[in-house]
Amino acid sequence: MINAAIVGGSGYTGGELARLLCRHPKISLEAMTSRQNAGVKVSHVMSYLEGFVDLRFEEKLGNGDYDLVFVAAPHGASMEVVPDLLKRGLRVIDLSGDYRLSDPSIYRKWYGLDHKDHDNLGRAVYGIPELFHERIAGADLIANPGCYPTCSALGLAPLFAKGLVESHAIVDAKSGTSGAGQQPTAVTHHPVCASQVTPYKVGTHRHAPEIQMVLERLARGFVDVVFTPHLIPIVRGMLCTSYARLNEPMDLGSIQLLYREYYHGKRFVRVVQGTPSIISVVGSNFCEIGLATAGKDTVVAMSTIDNLVKGGSGQAVQNANIMFGLEEASGLDFPGLGV
Amino acid sequence: MINAAIVGGSGYTGGELARLLCRHPKISLEAMTSRQNAGVKVSHVMSYLEGFVDLRFEEKLGNGDYDLVFVAAPHGASMEVVPDLLKRGLRVIDLSGDYRLSDPSIYRKWYGLDHKDHDNLGRAVYGIPELFHERIAGADLIANPGCYPTCSALGLAPLFAKGLVESHAIVDAKSGTSGAGQQPTAVTHHPVCASQVTPYKVGTHRHAPEIQMVLERLARGFVDVVFTPHLIPIVRGMLCTSYARLNEPMDLGSIQLLYREYYHGKRFVRVVQGTPSIISVVGSNFCEIGLATAGKDTVVAMSTIDNLVKGGSGQAVQNANIMFGLEEASGLDFPGLGV
Amino acid sequence: MINAAIVGGSGYTGGELARLLCRHPKISLEAMTSRQNAGVKVSHVMSYLEGFVDLRFEEKLGNGDYDLVFVAAPHGASMEVVPDLLKRGLRVIDLSGDYRLSDPSIYRKWYGLDHKDHDNLGRAVYGIPELFHERIAGADLIANPGCYPTCSALGLAPLFAKGLVESHAIVDAKSGTSGAGQQPTAVTHHPVCASQVTPYKVGTHRHAPEIQMVLERLARGFVDVVFTPHLIPIVRGMLCTSYARLNEPMDLGSIQLLYREYYHGKRFVRVVQGTPSIISVVGSNFCEIGLATAGKDTVVAMSTIDNLVKGGSGQAVQNANIMFGLEEASGLDFPGLGV
Amino acid sequence: MINAAIVGGSGYTGGELARLLCRHPKISLEAMTSRQNAGVKVSHVMSYLEGFVDLRFEEKLGNGDYDLVFVAAPHGASMEVVPDLLKRGLRVIDLSGDYRLSDPSIYRKWYGLDHKDHDNLGRAVYGIPELFHERIAGADLIANPGCYPTCSALGLAPLFAKGLVESHAIVDAKSGTSGAGQQPTAVTHHPVCASQVTPYKVGTHRHAPEIQMVLERLARGFVDVVFTPHLIPIVRGMLCTSYARLNEPMDLGSIQLLYREYYHGKRFVRVVQGTPSIISVVGSNFCEIGLATAGKDTVVAMSTIDNLVKGGSGQAVQNANIMFGLEEASGLDFPGLGV
Repeated sequence: MINAAIVGGSGYTGGELARLLCRHPKISLEAMTSRQNAGVKVSHVMSYLEGFVDLRFEEKLGNGDYDLVFVAAPHGASMEVVPDLLKRGLRVIDLSGDYRLSDPSIYRKWYGLDHKDHDNLGRAVYGIPELFHERIAGADLIANPGCYPTCSALGLAPLFAKGLVESHAIVDAKSGTSGAGQQPTAVTHHPVCASQVTPYKVGTHRHAPEIQMVLERLARGFVDVVFTPHLIPIVRGMLCTSYARLNEPMDLGSIQLLYREYYHGKRFVRVVQGTPSIISVVGSNFCEIGLATAGKDTVVAMSTIDNLVKGGSGQAVQNANIMFGLEEASGLDFPGLGV
Repeated sequence: MINAAIVGGSGYTGGELARLLCRHPKISLEAMTSRQNAGVKVSHVMSYLEGFVDLRFEEKLGNGDYDLVFVAAPHGASMEVVPDLLKRGLRVIDLSGDYRLSDPSIYRKWYGLDHKDHDNLGRAVYGIPELFHERIAGADLIANPGCYPTCSALGLAPLFAKGLVESHAIVDAKSGTSGAGQQPTAVTHHPVCASQVTPYKVGTHRHAPEIQMVLERLARGFVDVVFTPHLIPIVRGMLCTSYARLNEPMDLGSIQLLYREYYHGKRFVRVVQGTPSIISVVGSNFCEIGLATAGKDTVVAMSTIDNLVKGGSGQAVQNANIMFGLEEASGLDFPGLGV
Repeated sequence: MINAAIVGGSGYTGGELARLLCRHPKISLEAMTSRQNAGVKVSHVMSYLEGFVDLRFEEKLGNGDYDLVFVAAPHGASMEVVPDLLKRGLRVIDLSGDYRLSDPSIYRKWYGLDHKDHDNLGRAVYGIPELFHERIAGADLIANPGCYPTCSALGLAPLFAKGLVESHAIVDAKSGTSGAGQQPTAVTHHPVCASQVTPYKVGTHRHAPEIQMVLERLARGFVDVVFTPHLIPIVRGMLCTSYARLNEPMDLGSIQLLYREYYHGKRFVRVVQGTPSIISVVGSNFCEIGLATAGKDTVVAMSTIDNLVKGGSGQAVQNANIMFGLEEASGLDFPGLGV
Repeated sequence: MINAAIVGGSGYTGGELARLLCRHPKISLEAMTSRQNAGVKVSHVMSYLEGFVDLRFEEKLGNGDYDLVFVAAPHGASMEVVPDLLKRGLRVIDLSGDYRLSDPSIYRKWYGLDHKDHDNLGRAVYGIPELFHERIAGADLIANPGCYPTCSALGLAPLFAKGLVESHAIVDAKSGTSGAGQQPTAVTHHPVCASQVTPYKVGTHRHAPEIQMVLERLARGFVDVVFTPHLIPIVRGMLCTSYARLNEPMDLGSIQLLYREYYHGKRFVRVVQGTPSIISVVGSNFCEIGLATAGKDTVVAMSTIDNLVKGGSGQAVQNANIMFGLEEASGLDFPGLGV
């Protein structure tokens, strides 16, 4: 068994990691930390884990014999704890934004902070296994991607990787409210958001440069990204409706075929015939992708994930599986709820 | 008082017309027809109208002394009844798609029907008062616009009318489920749609050529329109997130100023500083518009309406007010619910 | 015109009062106070009121020439400001809980505060017009009822007033989240409440003694009340499903007839044949009541209101109309949204 | 491995059975029937099962070597197919209402049909394992309980089994819309149900006599049951708020202790300190129970389940596990979603 710990475990990301790890056949969850809930039983805070996780939150990670640490701390806090964990020789999967943007000046621009761990920033591997599988296996430090970049990049990757479209992408994203985290705010107050769809941080969301970075790696060149996130009144799940314009005419069937080939053998990506569904993937690590053409030359790539699973904790477990040479789907091999 | 009748009054559009007309100071609702509910009290079918509408549904419109008829029949059925109404000398506001697309070949292409009333198709005036006010006053027949074209065209109009953007628009629209009408279907079955956002009819929705027609009138030239409607799990209200690329750099403040000037004096359009809100307009005839810039040169125009009011029955009443020389806001001069 | 002011106007109750008063034909809204938003335009905080309310929030109520003050302050704060307003000779409608429970010892028990204004507590008239109409007309101070007591008491009143049932009532209430107010909390955090129905404060909610007080006045004797409020994932509207046991057998038709007679001439109460609907009353001051019998001898009384209108600000306006001898429905004479 | 088949597999119950069985370690899903979808791949109809269920729907069950058949047909149809399955020597778990009510005259009264299989009706074992465990192990035919009876009976059982309350129970139940099945109807049309809570079939729902039957078995005597189901705007999950009156005073702590002892060792029942949560159990086979006291002598028992799992397909799998001597939690040993 691989012994794992979660640092910063009392938020949605930590709870979801625990929900997945508690029935993982090869990874054993041995510790969870939380300043706020130190000393409290995990199942007291998350009643659904009673009978599955028999731990108490610790104030900080002890000297236990861990192989792997998931860091679910806020950005800014992650880069304070990751260097020490790496020095201890532990493998680290960081779920914050701290190690995702490889250029510290871009990090500073979008996060408003100086990056304090340039060394490890260079070593961090950006963990979307379907796109960057090879480097993950050997990594010590994984920057676990944001939910929006995961969903939109999977939706657009074949087009940009194969050079079929102009260097301009529009990502119109719709996310459930669990993506906003556990802290109540005016934006997630039920009377405010439940009868609305709310665009927010248009042009200023931190996932914009992350999407751009991924698309540029695939396209090997500059990509102009327009990213508009919206909050929709569901809790789990996300749809990205992404737009790109073809360089040359191409019919829908050929595009679908291209996608099927591109994702051939990728367990967690499902290219569907019509439009993808959120409820098909909720609770699971799957991504569904559907395609359409519209107007003169525009491809509409629609992709859905569970933002807390494939968009967060599930992808982290998938990355862990790859790092440790386990089956990629270990602990994740179950379908979405469907209803 | 102006005497009005509603043909095809038992759907959401008819009910909403009745809700608005029952407290209109200058228009009196004198008849509603419904084959399905002929003979039944209106307030029996729509309990909320008890004490406000004291009519029974009639099977078909009699020879009463009407000045104005709202036709809320399905497309295809409207063009069967409108010619006779016009021959009787009545003013007609048609809420179906039958008289919106001025070119019968485009109508045939998108509706799959031959248009049977070419004469009146040529006379019909497309009724978005904020864009085409002058022709409405003298019209006998108004083609009341679709909800998506109303919302997206109001959001994009200043950019295209002033020639500031390329001839390409992406309209990513999110509608409440009341837009799908009163008939239960698999798509609006609550377990199917309530935990999802569902793109549908991507590239094939009938409102696409209508949006294109409006933008082309404003731009005086071809516009390539990509239209992606989504069903979101709210009942009333709609957001269009529309994208266009500037010909020349322009800062956000200047764009906002342009919009404020363009809509100066238009009672029902509100250009807001940040993002627009659906709950601010629900229940009312208002449209809220917010603007952002993103990427290199993209304008993101966000617009909200209540799809049943400004996107349907409310705009029909607004058109009626203009046709009969009443105050444009007569019977519509109340705010949205806000909460 | 009657000049009115709202003290504590920046919450949902204040906004809803403003929404209703801004189109009231006989009451003119002249001032709104808010410590938090002092100096800010009302329509800046509540964009839906732009063009309808042209006021700025004042820090505290000035010496303007008001006839009527709506106090929308939190409980505890109301009894600090009400005495002075009454001394100035103004009529006051208090929307907090401060003047609802006529016995100060019960107030202390449930609100955890000593009541500081015993004098006016004795003079305050509890304002459900359909049940206590006569005393409202002559009142200086109205205690505007809670949403749950309004809805459940209207649903049960005929049974208790006519002595038909045992002295025991169960009120199983389901409220939209706007009833929780404008302040974000863990309970109204969308991911927490949107996929749930949540019972809360079972046996300990402050509306329990208020329901008991009303039923006891009607029954002229002790009534044992069990009150279980639930939060449901809608924003506006409330259903109370209330249970009482008949003393003597009585068929459903007779019960329905009794209700129709009891509420004869009451504009805002609608006794329906089957089950009542929330969407029929949303946005309006109406209460719908439906009835059923079940088990051996139990009456199930189901009642719906818009918690912000008939359950709050609308009923306050209705009380104001009665106090000033206006039409009872003045400014409130419009139907619910229906869809 | 135990070979299982599902008869009538294309509805929500069948899909949920397949979702659970596809990762069951000891039961292998070998066939699914559906008249409507005969010949179609299961994963074509239920995309979330792609990669998990590699079957095509068959028109009717063939002569395969099955050990166990889940019958997910509508009531009335089940009793047509169950006798033959039993004659073939197969174990049967029937998820319809056909074998739940042991008295055929009560069946006729509530289902409006004559029961055609009196023999097996007598042999059928009502399958709530936490209440009737011993008889399930030896059964050939399990009547899998309704969702409402499962949830409410688990909530009330200790009180009635221990004789602590009067012979009168009120069950005020709130269910997600998936309980209404896959067929779109006016009641589950999103615009109709999404902004409401809707009581339905008050006093006439078929689960009323089933609840009564269970409580009477526990109480060993007549129980007067009042059952009011409500549809709430969530998809999965159910809350029953049930009321009973104590014969003798008893404090809340003692009641909670009684419940903990009564359910000691029952893996899927969790007695919580405060109120139970739906999202804690969604996706899982758990039932959460919370308790309160209110009024003079009333116990409020609140219980939550996922209506499709513990209220249907999950409990069916639990019953199968017991019938075949497997671990009771086999294939069901995972927590709810929590968020």
